[in-house]
Amino acid sequence: MKLVHDPIHGGIELDDFAVRLIDTSEFQRLRRITQLGLAFLVYPSARHTRFEHSLGTFYLAKRIAEHNPEIEEGAVYAALLHDLGHYPFSHTLECLFPRHEENTRWFVRHGKIGDIIRERHSIGEFLKLLKHPLVSGDIDADRMDYLVRDAYYTGVAYGIVDLERLIRNLRWDGKRLVLHEKGIMAGQNLLLARSMMYPTVYYHHTVRIGSAMLCKAVELEGIEAEEIRRMDEIDLVAKLRGSEKREVRELIRAIENRRLYKRVVWSGERLEPELLDELRKELEDEFGPLALLDYPEMPKFEERNAFVECNGEVKRLSEVSPLVRALVEAKESHWRWGIYARADVVKRVREFASKNLK
Amino acid sequence: MKLVHDPIHGGIELDDFAVRLIDTSEFQRLRRITQLGLAFLVYPSARHTRFEHSLGTFYLAKRIAEHNPEIEEGAVYAALLHDLGHYPFSHTLECLFPRHEENTRWFVRHGKIGDIIRERHSIGEFLKLLKHPLVSGDIDADRMDYLVRDAYYTGVAYGIVDLERLIRNLRWDGKRLVLHEKGIMAGQNLLLARSMMYPTVYYHHTVRIGSAMLCKAVELEGIEAEEIRRMDEIDLVAKLRGSEKREVRELIRAIENRRLYKRVVWSGERLEPELLDELRKELEDEFGPLALLDYPEMPKFEERNAFVECNGEVKRLSEVSPLVRALVEAKESHWRWGIYARADVVKRVREFASKNLK
Amino acid sequence: MKLVHDPIHGGIELDDFAVRLIDTSEFQRLRRITQLGLAFLVYPSARHTRFEHSLGTFYLAKRIAEHNPEIEEGAVYAALLHDLGHYPFSHTLECLFPRHEENTRWFVRHGKIGDIIRERHSIGEFLKLLKHPLVSGDIDADRMDYLVRDAYYTGVAYGIVDLERLIRNLRWDGKRLVLHEKGIMAGQNLLLARSMMYPTVYYHHTVRIGSAMLCKAVELEGIEAEEIRRMDEIDLVAKLRGSEKREVRELIRAIENRRLYKRVVWSGERLEPELLDELRKELEDEFGPLALLDYPEMPKFEERNAFVECNGEVKRLSEVSPLVRALVEAKESHWRWGIYARADVVKRVREFASKNLK
Amino acid sequence: MKLVHDPIHGGIELDDFAVRLIDTSEFQRLRRITQLGLAFLVYPSARHTRFEHSLGTFYLAKRIAEHNPEIEEGAVYAALLHDLGHYPFSHTLECLFPRHEENTRWFVRHGKIGDIIRERHSIGEFLKLLKHPLVSGDIDADRMDYLVRDAYYTGVAYGIVDLERLIRNLRWDGKRLVLHEKGIMAGQNLLLARSMMYPTVYYHHTVRIGSAMLCKAVELEGIEAEEIRRMDEIDLVAKLRGSEKREVRELIRAIENRRLYKRVVWSGERLEPELLDELRKELEDEFGPLALLDYPEMPKFEERNAFVECNGEVKRLSEVSPLVRALVEAKESHWRWGIYARADVVKRVREFASKNLK
Repeated sequence: MKLVHDPIHGGIELDDFAVRLIDTSEFQRLRRITQLGLAFLVYPSARHTRFEHSLGTFYLAKRIAEHNPEIEEGAVYAALLHDLGHYPFSHTLECLFPRHEENTRWFVRHGKIGDIIRERHSIGEFLKLLKHPLVSGDIDADRMDYLVRDAYYTGVAYGIVDLERLIRNLRWDGKRLVLHEKGIMAGQNLLLARSMMYPTVYYHHTVRIGSAMLCKAVELEGIEAEEIRRMDEIDLVAKLRGSEKREVRELIRAIENRRLYKRVVWSGERLEPELLDELRKELEDEFGPLALLDYPEMPKFEERNAFVECNGEVKRLSEVSPLVRALVEAKESHWRWGIYARADVVKRVREFASKNLK
Repeated sequence: MKLVHDPIHGGIELDDFAVRLIDTSEFQRLRRITQLGLAFLVYPSARHTRFEHSLGTFYLAKRIAEHNPEIEEGAVYAALLHDLGHYPFSHTLECLFPRHEENTRWFVRHGKIGDIIRERHSIGEFLKLLKHPLVSGDIDADRMDYLVRDAYYTGVAYGIVDLERLIRNLRWDGKRLVLHEKGIMAGQNLLLARSMMYPTVYYHHTVRIGSAMLCKAVELEGIEAEEIRRMDEIDLVAKLRGSEKREVRELIRAIENRRLYKRVVWSGERLEPELLDELRKELEDEFGPLALLDYPEMPKFEERNAFVECNGEVKRLSEVSPLVRALVEAKESHWRWGIYARADVVKRVREFASKNLK
Repeated sequence: MKLVHDPIHGGIELDDFAVRLIDTSEFQRLRRITQLGLAFLVYPSARHTRFEHSLGTFYLAKRIAEHNPEIEEGAVYAALLHDLGHYPFSHTLECLFPRHEENTRWFVRHGKIGDIIRERHSIGEFLKLLKHPLVSGDIDADRMDYLVRDAYYTGVAYGIVDLERLIRNLRWDGKRLVLHEKGIMAGQNLLLARSMMYPTVYYHHTVRIGSAMLCKAVELEGIEAEEIRRMDEIDLVAKLRGSEKREVRELIRAIENRRLYKRVVWSGERLEPELLDELRKELEDEFGPLALLDYPEMPKFEERNAFVECNGEVKRLSEVSPLVRALVEAKESHWRWGIYARADVVKRVREFASKNLK
Repeated sequence: MKLVHDPIHGGIELDDFAVRLIDTSEFQRLRRITQLGLAFLVYPSARHTRFEHSLGTFYLAKRIAEHNPEIEEGAVYAALLHDLGHYPFSHTLECLFPRHEENTRWFVRHGKIGDIIRERHSIGEFLKLLKHPLVSGDIDADRMDYLVRDAYYTGVAYGIVDLERLIRNLRWDGKRLVLHEKGIMAGQNLLLARSMMYPTVYYHHTVRIGSAMLCKAVELEGIEAEEIRRMDEIDLVAKLRGSEKREVRELIRAIENRRLYKRVVWSGERLEPELLDELRKELEDEFGPLALLDYPEMPKFEERNAFVECNGEVKRLSEVSPLVRALVEAKESHWRWGIYARADVVKRVREFASKNLK
C-alpha cells in the first residue's frame, strides 16, 4: 500500500497491483503528457499531466466501486489505464492520428504493461473494461476528475463539482451507473460545468491557434502514427526543434515563444462541405503553412448517457432537467471555425478570405 | 479607514462614513439576523448573518464602482444598507409582513441612521439609490456576494462564482450595468448557480417546513408589523418562548429541538385558486396549527435584467445564452407545494388530503 | 444513517445512536452557543456554533477510531458530547462559573440525554470516556476540528492543519494517541497553528474587552450557576436586556452595539498578587462597572501530551521539535493584562492607573 | 494592459513593458523550467514552472509597491526577472554550476531581453535592482509567492500564508521592507511555513535521491556552464537520452521511470571535512555512478533580514518572536546527509558504509 499526495483528492491509496502498473515505463510516460495540451498558452499554470489525472480517476473509480460492490474489480484498474494512449499534448494531435483510445488498446496489447494485466485478466476482457461506464459514461470517474482538476490548475471557477455527492449517489444497476435522486443537482452541475469549460478553456481561441500550428508542424515533419504513439512531449518537441525543415523549426519556436498566428476569420456560420474543401485547398496552395484553416466538428449531444433515478424510475437526465436539454443548443452557440495567419501575411489572408467568403 | 476580516473577500476596507453607518444600532441589529433563516436545520453551519453579507455587498459595489467612476458614490452606501430592513430569520416572515425593502425604507426615513445619511443625501435621493442596479439588477453586488457566501457557509458547491471576472467586466452605461463579452460566461454561471441554490438550499423542503411552522407561531402570537420591524432574532424567539399561548410555545420549541412537521403532500401540480382557498380553510378548521399548507408563488422569469455587450451591441443575456433561456423552465420544474403535519396527526391529515385532492 | 453537510469535512455520516443523542434538547441547545463567544466583534463571520464543532469532532474521532479498531466505541460518542456543557458564549463566562467540562458531566448525569447514554454505558463509564485522549490530548479530534473550523469562519490563515495526515498517522497504543513519524510535521504544525490563533483570534484585545463587559453584566445580574448551566444565548441576552438594573441593560446594549470600553492599560508585566488584589478593589470602589481589570492566568505549557514515535521509540513531541519547545516562551510573549474603561471615564481611569502603577 | 489568469492571485495585470519583457524567448524559456525540479517524483502534481512563479512575484511586488510609492518602479520589473537564470529543474543543478542569480545577470547583460531593459535602465542599475529587498529579503514577494504556490501545487498544507496581511503591512523605510506590528504574526507564519516546507517537499529524501542522480548524469555527460545556461528541460533531457554514454542514458531513464537509487545511509551526524572527502573518493572509486554521496551544506540562519516595527521601534523579527529564534535549531534538526545506491549494489554499498563509517 502506497500513498500519493494529490491536491484534489488529498491522499490517493495505491494497492500493490496499481503500483506495479504505475511503475511501468508506459505509465510513467504520462508524466510527460500535458493534460490540457497547449492550454498553458492562455492559462500558464495549467501544467498538470495525464499522470495525475489517471491517479485521480483511479481514486474516484475506487470510491464509486466501494459504494457498489457488484462492479467488477478490474474496472477500477481500467480506470487507471484509460488514458495510457494519449499522444503528446493530449487531444491536440488527434486531428492527425487515430483517437487516443485506440492507442491505449495498442499499449495494452503490445506494451510490457500487458504482461502485468495478464496476471489477472485476459487482454480481451480488459479491453472491454476500458469501455466500462465507470470511465465512459456521461457522469463518470474520468469526467469527475478532469473537470475539478482542470478548474484547479487553470483557476477557472466553472469546473467545481460536488464529488462527494456524486460518489455517494451513483448506483450500479448491472449495466450502467444511475444517479440517485439526491445527486441529480450535482450531476446536472457536472454537465453544465463541462459545457462552460469548453469555450473558456478547452476551445479557447488562443489554444486552438496554437494547436493548429502544432498539427501543421507535425504534419510537415511527416511523423507517422507508429512513431508518435510512444513519444512523450520531450521526444516530440526535440524532434521538431531539430527538424531539417525550416518551416517546422519555425512553427515550434513560434509556439514556444508565443508568437502565435492571428485570427483572420472567426465565425459561427457553417460551410457547405464542398466549399470547405475548396477553401482549404486554395488557402494551402496560396499560403502553405502560413495560414491555417481550423474547422472543428459540430458538437454532438453527448449527454444521452446520464441516467437518473426519479421516483423509482430510471430516466435520462435530459428528461428531468431543462438545463441539460438546453446544453446541445448551448454548445452549438459556442461553436466557431477560424482561419489563422502568421502576422506578416494577415493582410493578404484577409483579402483572400473576403474574396472567397462572399 | 478600518479593515474588517472576511473569509470571502479577505480584508474589507471601510471609510469613515461607512464606519459611522455601521456603528448605528440599526445596522448592528443585522448581526442578529441570520442570512439564510432556518436553513441551519439542514446546513448546521449556515449561521452567517445579514451583517457580513451587507459588508460584502458594500465591498463588491465599491470594487465595481472603482472600475466605473461615473457611478454616483452614494450607490455604494446604498449597497451597504440595502438589507437593513430584514426581519428576524430574513425572508422567512415575508409571508406575513411587507417585503423587507419596505422596512429598509422605513429605517432610512425614521431611524437614527437617517441622520447620518442626511449629511450627504436627501432622504428621497437615497431611497432612489436603494434601487440602483448595483444592488437590484440580475447580476449585481448583492447576488454576487450572497451566492458565494451562502455556498461557503453551507458547503454546497453550486454557488461558486467568478467574482473577479464579473467585477472587471461590468460596465455602467449610465442607467444599468452591462456585462462585457469576456464576462458573459461568468454571468451565465452566476444565474445557473443561483438556480441550483434554490432547490438545494433556499427552498429545501426541511427549511420550508420549519419556516411554515415559524410563520404560524408568529401569526398565532399576533405580532404586528410595527413590532416585528425593529426586532432581532433574540427578541422574537424570547417572545415566542415566553408566549401565553401553549401552541406558540410548542411551535418554537419544536423548531428549536428539530421536531419538525412531516410532509404529507409534496406536489408540483398547481391548484385552482378557489380549490386552494377552500383547502386551506378546511385544513385550518380541522387541524388548526397542527397541519400547515404551504403554497409558494410560481417562480417568475427574473433574469430579464441581465444585459451583455456582444459585438458592440447590448442584448439581454437570455438572448445569447440558451442555458439562461432554459432557466425559467428549470425553476418551474423545481416548484412544489406541500402540506405538513405534526407527527401525531400525520395519518389523519393524509386521509384528509387523499379525500380532498381527488 | 443520516448525512449532514459540513463545509469542513464534506458529509458527516451519523448512525442511529448518534442521531438520537443529537435529537435531544440538550444537544440542540448547542446550536445557540457560539463557538468563539464574542470573537464576532472582530471577525463578524465567526458565527459558527458548538453544534457544528461537536459534529466535526465526532467525525474526526470516528475517522481516527477506524484506523485504530482497539479504541472503544463509546469514546467516539463521548467526542460527540464533549462540549455539551458549554455556557452561552462558550469560554467567556468561565471566569464566573465552573469550567464547562463540569457542566457537561452534570448534563450526562441529570439530563434526559443520560437515558440514551445508559442504553450502552454506565454513567460512570461514560464520564471516564469524556477524558479519553481522543478528545483530551494535545493532538486530538477536538483541537483538529476547532482549529480548522475557526480558521475557516474567521478567514484567518493560521489554523490550516493537515487533517488527513494526522488521521492516518495517529496510532492508539492502549493508553494514548501516538503520532507516527510521517505525521510529526503535521502535529507540529497543529501546535504552531494553535499558538498563532491565540493572540490573533481567541485573545484578541477587542474580544477580551467585550468578554470582560459581558462577565461584569452577568455578575451584576446575579445569575447563579444553577441557572446559567441550561441557558442558551437567547435566554441570557434576553434576560440581560430585560434586567431591572440599568448598568446591566447598558452593558449588554453596549456590547451589542459595539460601543466597547477602551484599553487604558495593556501590559505584559506581571503584578504581585497583593498589588493585583488591591488594584482590583480600588478600581471597583472608584469606578464600579465603568472600569474593568482583566488579568488572565499565565499560559501553561500544555503541549506535554503530544507523543510521537521516532525510530521506534515513543517520545514527547517537544523532545524532537525545537519549535514546539519554543511554544511556551511564545505564549508568554503574547500574554497581556489590561484595564478597560467606558469612553467617558477613560481620562480619569488613566490618571488612576498612572498613580497606582508607579 | 493584459490579464493573465492565475489560480493563486486571480487575475494578474501586465502593463506593456512587462508584456514585452515576457514575450522574449529568454522569459518564455521559464515555461519549461519546473519550479520544484524533481519534486514531482513525490508530489506528481507539482508541475508548475518558474514562468508562473515569476508572474506571481511580479504581482506581489507591484501590490507591495502600490502601498509604498517610494519604491522605485524598476524594482517591480526586477521582481519579474529575478529567476530568469534558473537552470533546467531549478535548483537541482546548482551543485554543478554557479548559482542561478549569476546566470540571471548574464541574461540581463547578454540576452536580447537586455535591449528592452535598456530602454528604461542602465544595465548596472538594473543588476542592482535584482538585489532589491522586494525580492531578496527574508519576507519578500519571491518567498510569498513560492510558498503559497508550492503549497497549492503539492497539496501540502504548510505553505499557507496570509498574503493580504503581509502586503498591507510591509512598509518601505528607504532601504528595506519593515513589517508593521499588525503583520508580525503573518510574517512569523511565513518563516515557519518555509521551515516546514523544507523537509516535507524541498528536501524530501526521494527528491534528493533523484536530484543526486540527475547531477551525476549531467556531470558524466560533461555539459559546460556555457551550454546549460540557455537550455530548457527539453534540451537537457533530450541530450541525456541521446547520450553516447550508457551510464548517462541509464540514469535519465531511471529517473524518468522512477527506478530510483535506495538510501543506504541517512544520517544527521556531521562528518569531518577530510573524512568526507576521503569517503566520497573511495565511494566513487569503488562504485562509480552506482553509488552517490549527498552531503548538503549546513543550514544557515537566514532569517536575519526580517525586520518588524514594534512600538515604533524597528527590530529583527527574531528578537520579538521566540518561534523564529527556534528556527535555526529546527533546521539543524532536519539536516541529513545520505549515500544512495542502485538497487543491485545496495548490499555491497551497505558493507562499504559500515566498514568506512566505524
